[in-house]
Amino acid sequence: MELIDALNWRYAAKKMTGERVPDEKINTILEAIRLSASSIGLQPYNVIVIDNPELKGLIHEKACPQPQIVEGSHVLVFAAWTTLEEKQIDDYIQLIADTRHQDPEKLAPFATSIKGNILNRTPEQNADWMARQSYIALGTGLVAAATEGVDATPMEGFNNAALDDVLGLPAKGLRSVSILVLGYRDTERDFLASAPKVRRPAEELFIAA
Amino acid sequence: MELIDALNWRYAAKKMTGERVPDEKINTILEAIRLSASSIGLQPYNVIVIDNPELKGLIHEKACPQPQIVEGSHVLVFAAWTTLEEKQIDDYIQLIADTRHQDPEKLAPFATSIKGNILNRTPEQNADWMARQSYIALGTGLVAAATEGVDATPMEGFNNAALDDVLGLPAKGLRSVSILVLGYRDTERDFLASAPKVRRPAEELFIAA
Repeated sequence: MELIDALNWRYAAKKMTGERVPDEKINTILEAIRLSASSIGLQPYNVIVIDNPELKGLIHEKACPQPQIVEGSHVLVFAAWTTLEEKQIDDYIQLIADTRHQDPEKLAPFATSIKGNILNRTPEQNADWMARQSYIALGTGLVAAATEGVDATPMEGFNNAALDDVLGLPAKGLRSVSILVLGYRDTERDFLASAPKVRRPAEELFIAA
Repeated sequence: MELIDALNWRYAAKKMTGERVPDEKINTILEAIRLSASSIGLQPYNVIVIDNPELKGLIHEKACPQPQIVEGSHVLVFAAWTTLEEKQIDDYIQLIADTRHQDPEKLAPFATSIKGNILNRTPEQNADWMARQSYIALGTGLVAAATEGVDATPMEGFNNAALDDVLGLPAKGLRSVSILVLGYRDTERDFLASAPKVRRPAEELFIAA
């Protein structure tokens, strides 16, 4: 679907049909998320991909009672790294070197610059920054789902600690930030499916300067 | 451009040509930002759109010395609301009522629910939340620019206070969060234009659960 048409079509479905989204579409949405922009290119998060009915049921029961969790096809959990340390930056520098067939030594000035910026921040500042980065990926995933004709409902207001516990995220060095449920809108049960889209008018949202 | 191709094509251009992006493409990118997903649909931010060379020069001088500010065509500043109060939620409820031709009284339970969530948070929590929302719009703008074949460089590491001052944002109840420069890559001066894209491999970024 063309981008603007897709964005006009999309909304946060409140009820879903339970129909499975084909793997090909899921893979396209995940690839868009993987290619998402990220500050310095670091991508300081992981995405948990859940299609197991039992696990979705457990998340629904323990962390997020919204019906889309069990009526959706796939539940994506965007989880930021809990800490940001020198090792993760070194791994990233190595990834650049491997991808571009560069000598890591040549990237030393870049590494020093990144470390100077990031490692001088407080853990709280970095936690907030990593969470924000995950929202760029969330935004990319929302657009990708829409262009694939797949409904996507983003969620924030869940029990983060319970979700982290269900998914064992602390042991993986992760903490949940947002959820994106992929599936198909149930147009009969969701009155919002036919409601006009509400967005602030351009003349109010944009300020020409 | 198809989405995945567009995302593979895009990168954060470090040098731009100064060529102007046609209004039609700018308008498509802005419309995508306007249609961006936002928690509860609130869109608690504004986007300042700058193509005035003098103002770009002033931003470059005072707040952000990166060359794209003056080599780019349009500078977008994503600015979150500085406060979040009952009045803004009431305005949003009115916008829903106007758009959907509903009686605002019928939306009272929804309004009460939103207010209960939002107005019970600390100002700092809401400031952080509003900034995060602007990252979803930033992500949408990044994707839209790519599908239009327009380069887009996101920026965070600028002098926020200086930028807010140059643009008079405090008087508008806004504070800058991020910048998105729209323009065209200078392939001769930007060695990154031909460098392979670096992204974490799918098997590392995604966790099947």
